[in-house]
Amino acid sequence: MTGATGPFPRRTHTCGSLSARDAGSKVTLTGWLLPGRKVGKELYFFPLKDSHGTVQLVVPSEVGKETLELISSVPVESTVLVQGTVSERPSKQKRPYPGGDVEITVTACTLLNPAEQPLPFTPSDEHNLPAEEFRLRYRYLDLRRSTLSGNLQKRSRVAHQIRTALHDHGFVEVETPILLKSTPEGAREFLVPTRLSASAPSSETSISATPRASFTQPLFYALPQSPQQPKQLLIASGAVDRYYQIARCFRDEDGRKDRQPEFTQIDLEMGWVSWGDDPSHARSDGWRIGGREVRETIEYLIRSIWQKEEGIELPETFKVMTYEEAMRRFGSDKPDTRFGLELQLVTHRFPEPVQDALATADQVVEAIVLRGKDTHPRSALKKKELYDAATSVSSAHSAECFASHSLPTLRGQDGACLVRVLSDGTVKGGSKDGSFGALNSPEVVRDALALTPGDTAWVARRSRTPEGGSTVLGRVRLLLSNLAQATGELTLATAPHFLWVTEFPLFTRADPDKDFLAHGRWSSTHHPFTAPMWEDIDRMYNGRISEVRGQHYDLVLNGVEVGGGSVRVHDAEMQEHIFSKILQLSEKEKSTFAHLLHALRCGAPPHGGIALGFDRLMAILCRTESIRDVIAFPKTGAGTDLLFKSPAAADSDGTLQQYGIQPRRSS
Amino acid sequence: MTGATGPFPRRTHTCGSLSARDAGSKVTLTGWLLPGRKVGKELYFFPLKDSHGTVQLVVPSEVGKETLELISSVPVESTVLVQGTVSERPSKQKRPYPGGDVEITVTACTLLNPAEQPLPFTPSDEHNLPAEEFRLRYRYLDLRRSTLSGNLQKRSRVAHQIRTALHDHGFVEVETPILLKSTPEGAREFLVPTRLSASAPSSETSISATPRASFTQPLFYALPQSPQQPKQLLIASGAVDRYYQIARCFRDEDGRKDRQPEFTQIDLEMGWVSWGDDPSHARSDGWRIGGREVRETIEYLIRSIWQKEEGIELPETFKVMTYEEAMRRFGSDKPDTRFGLELQLVTHRFPEPVQDALATADQVVEAIVLRGKDTHPRSALKKKELYDAATSVSSAHSAECFASHSLPTLRGQDGACLVRVLSDGTVKGGSKDGSFGALNSPEVVRDALALTPGDTAWVARRSRTPEGGSTVLGRVRLLLSNLAQATGELTLATAPHFLWVTEFPLFTRADPDKDFLAHGRWSSTHHPFTAPMWEDIDRMYNGRISEVRGQHYDLVLNGVEVGGGSVRVHDAEMQEHIFSKILQLSEKEKSTFAHLLHALRCGAPPHGGIALGFDRLMAILCRTESIRDVIAFPKTGAGTDLLFKSPAAADSDGTLQQYGIQPRRSS
Repeated sequence: MTGATGPFPRRTHTCGSLSARDAGSKVTLTGWLLPGRKVGKELYFFPLKDSHGTVQLVVPSEVGKETLELISSVPVESTVLVQGTVSERPSKQKRPYPGGDVEITVTACTLLNPAEQPLPFTPSDEHNLPAEEFRLRYRYLDLRRSTLSGNLQKRSRVAHQIRTALHDHGFVEVETPILLKSTPEGAREFLVPTRLSASAPSSETSISATPRASFTQPLFYALPQSPQQPKQLLIASGAVDRYYQIARCFRDEDGRKDRQPEFTQIDLEMGWVSWGDDPSHARSDGWRIGGREVRETIEYLIRSIWQKEEGIELPETFKVMTYEEAMRRFGSDKPDTRFGLELQLVTHRFPEPVQDALATADQVVEAIVLRGKDTHPRSALKKKELYDAATSVSSAHSAECFASHSLPTLRGQDGACLVRVLSDGTVKGGSKDGSFGALNSPEVVRDALALTPGDTAWVARRSRTPEGGSTVLGRVRLLLSNLAQATGELTLATAPHFLWVTEFPLFTRADPDKDFLAHGRWSSTHHPFTAPMWEDIDRMYNGRISEVRGQHYDLVLNGVEVGGGSVRVHDAEMQEHIFSKILQLSEKEKSTFAHLLHALRCGAPPHGGIALGFDRLMAILCRTESIRDVIAFPKTGAGTDLLFKSPAAADSDGTLQQYGIQPRRSS
Repeated sequence: MTGATGPFPRRTHTCGSLSARDAGSKVTLTGWLLPGRKVGKELYFFPLKDSHGTVQLVVPSEVGKETLELISSVPVESTVLVQGTVSERPSKQKRPYPGGDVEITVTACTLLNPAEQPLPFTPSDEHNLPAEEFRLRYRYLDLRRSTLSGNLQKRSRVAHQIRTALHDHGFVEVETPILLKSTPEGAREFLVPTRLSASAPSSETSISATPRASFTQPLFYALPQSPQQPKQLLIASGAVDRYYQIARCFRDEDGRKDRQPEFTQIDLEMGWVSWGDDPSHARSDGWRIGGREVRETIEYLIRSIWQKEEGIELPETFKVMTYEEAMRRFGSDKPDTRFGLELQLVTHRFPEPVQDALATADQVVEAIVLRGKDTHPRSALKKKELYDAATSVSSAHSAECFASHSLPTLRGQDGACLVRVLSDGTVKGGSKDGSFGALNSPEVVRDALALTPGDTAWVARRSRTPEGGSTVLGRVRLLLSNLAQATGELTLATAPHFLWVTEFPLFTRADPDKDFLAHGRWSSTHHPFTAPMWEDIDRMYNGRISEVRGQHYDLVLNGVEVGGGSVRVHDAEMQEHIFSKILQLSEKEKSTFAHLLHALRCGAPPHGGIALGFDRLMAILCRTESIRDVIAFPKTGAGTDLLFKSPAAADSDGTLQQYGIQPRRSS
């Protein structure tokens, strides 16, 4: 059975576009033939599907033996061209998808391309799909499923809405290089070998095991983790004052759940960002930093997407919360504000010796208290996992996977103590945190928090100045919510909760495992180009580094960070101070920022920007947990492409040779 | 002098948006301060420029000493925030650029960021610009020039027009992977090392100089030269039936004039492409192949761009010419049809022995004849370069740079013979092509072409079946046109001449230097997925390979190829035949196409597509010779980025180590 290779006519309609209004029309359709059924002796029904919808084909015996034989013998998932007449289906037979209102009485059928049998799997059989890994190998079949097809179409619609909204607001789309230079921030950058090379400096030759071996030093491009430097240089140039790009970015990190080595961000940057129409009145809404134009742009964008795709009218402006408040009330820098269970700071309720010890350690105590009268989440509290998790804090080591319903383990320098007062007054609980005995005494906790029979509480220490993305009880709070949702006690609000979190600490005590710039004590919380809040500039120059807050803003949706950005440093001296005095970059490291520093010196305007994770945003809009469902050809968590069988060995040694490299010999 | 780091208000207008209608308004503006001048004792004028336009600032002495001093001492190209009142300029002082109709009487001025002095160069001083290489190092200053700024803004407008037009036509934007797999076609693909590795097969270890050294085999992604395979797989899947992407592509080729290692193409692919509404009537317009939907889409796109950006109404459909006709009449597969000077085939006019010899060699003779009565291009003919070029064909070796006005040298296996008949009847001319004596006799040529005094003619041999991109006389024709334009004798039509060239030979005798798939005698003229014309399918299966024409189409504008595409093979057996029997791919090479073959077997629809070179298209629309002028951060012809100083050595040996590679030691 072979398909058509010669001329055939144009389709007149897509399957999905047909409706009752087309009844009586003669149409030419193309699509995939799905499994049919025979009704009585003379009538066949076959669904015909294209990427727009599905119509029912009716094949009466009058169509002729040849056509009847062809259409009933064509393998499922073959592509055909069908000519016929549209009629409206009886109400009872109408189906609630595009094309579902009509049927086509077939007059002729041409086989365009037969599908082999058996197929690896049948994409239209949604209830019988093999495992994702198998389907990824045959992505060209899997994408035929309406779900994935719909996701890709939605992604395209949203991208176009974004572009149109940004163009309407005077944004200029500019493509920045993908073959860029590696930066000292970029220990996770992919390198691209080139045929260009430099002579190796003698110092490098001399450390070679075989001192007389010579080699030319290969030269590399690097793939950008984000277009941060190009976009700042672009705005500094003045060529455009509002830049955007739906930009491909690359990060070579160890396989983390739901990450891709290449991903897409909605990237924008604006010149002349300000404090608003009237700087002195701008603060009543909690936005106490610059970059109002960025905020307004993003709120407009998000509002228009939710309006068009979800039919939801979001508020004109989104709530704003400082990092300090978010950490204090929710124990998270991306709080999920769809439910309560808020944290309290309870240091002052403990006996004086405990308070003194905490002060010496520069620590405070946070608590979640569930009074007996609170009716929920009560049954969640019975889950053993909760106790296990809350009391095994010190031995846990990862809290990465909090967005999902899976049970997280908890990490922290500080332990959590769980205390329950049973109905008979017995106090139970404690933690394995032996380092701070008083808090480990259930009775002390009961007294401090005035717990009565039926109450449950968690307490945990944290450093007085909040640090990082979450506290121990912030994680307990999410765990509690997940468990309560699982038991059905908690149903989250359906309206999306958008929230700006601002005023992050500009610098963080360096974690040498995570930050390769961390020579000194401080590293940039986000990146070294973020401007301090102007109220904190003096502190920054006077060495009160921990107190300096940045003009950074994160956009949070339902507890998920969907984007972040900042007002940038535009003052070259200040940028230089940050590089040299605070981050203590070496001259060599600084040299990779030389062009940016010089661009600031050439009259760069004040500027700021933001980047939203487009894959994540689309996963939310498509109501899927996995960003792979919104990417046409995704890679696995391990970074392999099962369809294209990539990465792969180089074709030959000669290929590497022209790039001046070779496989590394192990000694 | 330091700039502002604290709060400042929002600008109310851009400089370019102000017009006489705004007279009387109080405005807040931001921009770059350009050199001013003093008029009389009390009035200063300074132009203030932003990316939208330039307004004149008037600084009266009433403004106060402080502001006066600030604004007159601020270094040129500093950024300032200015408050003032708009007034209309007297007609005589109006300037023909955005903002040129008004002036601003300044009431206050804030320095936002001072520019250092001296700057490397002053972008506003367009008549005193340093060489391009110097400016590329300071691209952030160069982009401040209105020309480049305008190019980037135009590029963004055109990109958005394209996207909007495609969305309106049901196209879905889909992002395809940039981290892809290398293909056997892809000897010019960039590789990206990964941390993943495979154990090296023993055969590779055994060729090592030190047989006992072991290594793991590093694995690589490759950057795509185009999204050809992903887009075909996407359409094969049926997820979308109209795909587009403004796609970044990568090609690692030796520096050729005006090429970039990364470039952008408008890439699209359509399922169900057909022969039109009525296949039997479709041929009257010269389009005798499938893929009508692609043609119509591109014509719509191009028409709407030219209408909106150029104010030109292009014809509803573009002319179509077969490759055979283009080569015969113009000696080029991308003919510039804005002028005549057409070629003729004159084989039959030569004496029988010459014809016999030509037949034996399977050759024909092409000619350009300029009769004495033709008034142009006469003085161009006097140029010595023309003679030199036409008579030095055999020693020439490159004809790559024909689009420009520079003098090309000619390449070809066949020589060109130039013959002039002087006014006294003397015959002059000849070529250095000693291999075919008869044509080198000026008298024989004169007689064959019936040349009379004052006539000039070129003749050249070429193979009977035209091959490649141009013939000798096709190149002479362009040279003649360039010279005639230089002398002012020829002025080309201003209306753009768009043209489709179709029916290319599907296979080409392999040039082993250029085509790494060329194991057998044949390689694909464009790529191995192009479908044959259906009339030629039997020939293809019967080994008459040279006679098989492909369903390929190139879009040509004024002699420049701006895009190309084809109807693809959708029949797996046919694709397999092409891979195995014609291109003679090895099993290993074929295996890299295994997923595509299988996708065809899973019921792929007939499909076709096209890609337009976006950088080249924008260079044409921006009237610049160099695509670097339409790219924000371009690389040099050698592939270096002078701004970001890329490519560069890897940070450390450790960086390479984690990718399992090391610099190649020379032995």
